[in-house]
Amino acid sequence: MIAEILCVGTELLMGQVLNTNARYLARGLSALGITHQRQSVVGDNPERLREALQEALRRADVVITSGGLGPTVDDITKRVTAELAGQELVLRPEAEAHVRECFARFGREMTPNNLSQAMFTADSVLLPNPKGTAPGAIVPMDPEGAKFVIHLPGPPRELEPMFAASVAPWLAARSENALRSRYFRLFGIGESDVDDRLGDLERGGNPSLSPYCSLGEVLLRLTAAAPTEAEALALMDPIAQEVRRRLGEFIYDERDDEGGSLEECAIRALRARGWTVATCESLTGGMIADTLVGVPGASEVVKGGLVTYMSVAKTMLAGVPAELIERCNVVSAEVAMAMAQGTRQRLEVDIAVSATGLAGPGGGTPERPVGTVFLGIATAKGVRAIPLHLTGDRPRIRQLTVKHALRALIREAAGA
Amino acid sequence: MIAEILCVGTELLMGQVLNTNARYLARGLSALGITHQRQSVVGDNPERLREALQEALRRADVVITSGGLGPTVDDITKRVTAELAGQELVLRPEAEAHVRECFARFGREMTPNNLSQAMFTADSVLLPNPKGTAPGAIVPMDPEGAKFVIHLPGPPRELEPMFAASVAPWLAARSENALRSRYFRLFGIGESDVDDRLGDLERGGNPSLSPYCSLGEVLLRLTAAAPTEAEALALMDPIAQEVRRRLGEFIYDERDDEGGSLEECAIRALRARGWTVATCESLTGGMIADTLVGVPGASEVVKGGLVTYMSVAKTMLAGVPAELIERCNVVSAEVAMAMAQGTRQRLEVDIAVSATGLAGPGGGTPERPVGTVFLGIATAKGVRAIPLHLTGDRPRIRQLTVKHALRALIREAAGA
Repeated sequence: MIAEILCVGTELLMGQVLNTNARYLARGLSALGITHQRQSVVGDNPERLREALQEALRRADVVITSGGLGPTVDDITKRVTAELAGQELVLRPEAEAHVRECFARFGREMTPNNLSQAMFTADSVLLPNPKGTAPGAIVPMDPEGAKFVIHLPGPPRELEPMFAASVAPWLAARSENALRSRYFRLFGIGESDVDDRLGDLERGGNPSLSPYCSLGEVLLRLTAAAPTEAEALALMDPIAQEVRRRLGEFIYDERDDEGGSLEECAIRALRARGWTVATCESLTGGMIADTLVGVPGASEVVKGGLVTYMSVAKTMLAGVPAELIERCNVVSAEVAMAMAQGTRQRLEVDIAVSATGLAGPGGGTPERPVGTVFLGIATAKGVRAIPLHLTGDRPRIRQLTVKHALRALIREAAGA
Repeated sequence: MIAEILCVGTELLMGQVLNTNARYLARGLSALGITHQRQSVVGDNPERLREALQEALRRADVVITSGGLGPTVDDITKRVTAELAGQELVLRPEAEAHVRECFARFGREMTPNNLSQAMFTADSVLLPNPKGTAPGAIVPMDPEGAKFVIHLPGPPRELEPMFAASVAPWLAARSENALRSRYFRLFGIGESDVDDRLGDLERGGNPSLSPYCSLGEVLLRLTAAAPTEAEALALMDPIAQEVRRRLGEFIYDERDDEGGSLEECAIRALRARGWTVATCESLTGGMIADTLVGVPGASEVVKGGLVTYMSVAKTMLAGVPAELIERCNVVSAEVAMAMAQGTRQRLEVDIAVSATGLAGPGGGTPERPVGTVFLGIATAKGVRAIPLHLTGDRPRIRQLTVKHALRALIREAAGA
């Protein structure tokens, strides 16, 4: 089965709205193993919508639309689709009851144009909308039942539950394959290095191996499709072993879903060790602590932290001797270690991580160019510094510093 | 001029990446007054890319692509475009120099396939990429110079500055109108309230008034197009005055470009006052400090901060009496004020801001539901608390708290 996504809305063409629906639906199709080769966006214009729908139906068996189900004059998706199917829109009593009930519940008066939300072709399968007024629909486009258009509402809070509850089961029932995926999370290796090392395994087909790059990290997805789950797993396993053999040193997490960010792994590793953590941050200005606190359950692990942005704050808060800063430079292994040790003592935690460095744009020197960063890690066993030589602009250097700090916490907590 | 956006990347079809590029480019086209009727996404597949490009070039004068400029086998955008233009890709020396310099700067070895990033058709106009390895290009698709494909890199941090610096001026020069915009930044009012208050001014046309909503903030763009800049300004001015009259209390910044985030305004206001600032953060875990530090020039203003995530850290670091926490609850106006005062004294700053609250998901009670937050503001004049009743999930509550804290700093520094 081949599916396409067609999002309808001038607000998308104006850039007023981020198209999160396309990503949500793409993920859903991918999880179901349904081929999805094209996404399109058109505005609230009947001719251009008709053209886009016709093209999409030539290429795909199922076209999922989002948006254009509301009562305003702009909302044209159902009307254009019905014309292409050669059918009339008729008032569907079950949809009318839902629309009337919504208005009654919100205490709003229903104007006649709102009943257009209850009109569908006679053979459409209606999709309940528990979160909004406009029902969705699965619309057969030919008498043979070969092609379908699936209408979903535009607001993500309506679209997402409707897809999950009504569309995904319908699509699953019509598609053939079981699909299994395995996700490897890598840190410290670039996308092109992953390509070089796995290039011979990546040549498309089944199983497929796809690297997705984000700042400093690579998410590697291994997917196999087969008539049964066991067969899909059997296809996948030898490739998974090869990935581990070739890239093991860079893998910090491996699981059956996409989850598992660096910060989640760090919290998990610290909790497993029964450790509390504190931070002492200069160039990252609190971002390491904030990233850890963003993980639910952080409160068992994260005690607190110090933001020592000005040099004098390193002395005031973490007890770094002013003389040491003067002698070694504020961006130095010595100061990073003193920050971590001072923080560990001051906050009475098991492990403290510190970061001092030059995020730029100004302030670089030949000996200490922008991107020079030192992390400090203090535990009961002692203290050490990790020098980093980062590149890029200020946000990138700050974010990479956070990721390196999280990676260092994971390694330390794992006892590696 | 009619433009289309064509984003290339299997990661978009798999739903692994949110298509922020499409929105960024759509906004850019909209700001230039360029007609934009269609967006498409295809995967890293040459046949389907060719088909999509051909279709787009039939409809549009300019097709802007994003993605597929890198060195891997998947990266096919330039090759397919050159074939459609009936030309060869040749090594362009200025691009080769840039690619080699990038590798030298990052200290990485350049494999031969990386030189593909320096190959373009002979008549392409190259677009510098200060943030990455792969240059972009404006590719003429016919000898008459009627149709163009513009290649931009996939990573937003490379695409956005390249569009702003190289593509927008080129597009502006080719389109007819002078365009003037005015941006109002609002905090504390929702998009639908803005709609209600400005509905009569918003009825499309020229000048146009478009609200863009983000978390807790509304960016209102007023744009006028006319044969000359002076005429565009004359069209715009009466509407700008009306916006100020109706929404003045919510406007925290007004300027001719989109810049001017809350944090930039906060740093600017603090610097204008000659004040240093420190933070004391519980539920936000360092995000207020980090957001301030993210603004270049923050080092004159931000001294440091305390992350007091566990209750005991509020006592250890900010000197909040354990008895006060016990008596008033850790989420209380009293504790927020004590955090701010303790931090102001401890860090010897002019103003300290604190935040304590319940970000959820767990921990709410009938008296203190999730979303209950108290900010504290301490200055030489004294200390006060600001109670907030926020809604939404954990990330939203934490981010809204940061924005309210920044807004409070702006007001306080402005002496309001």
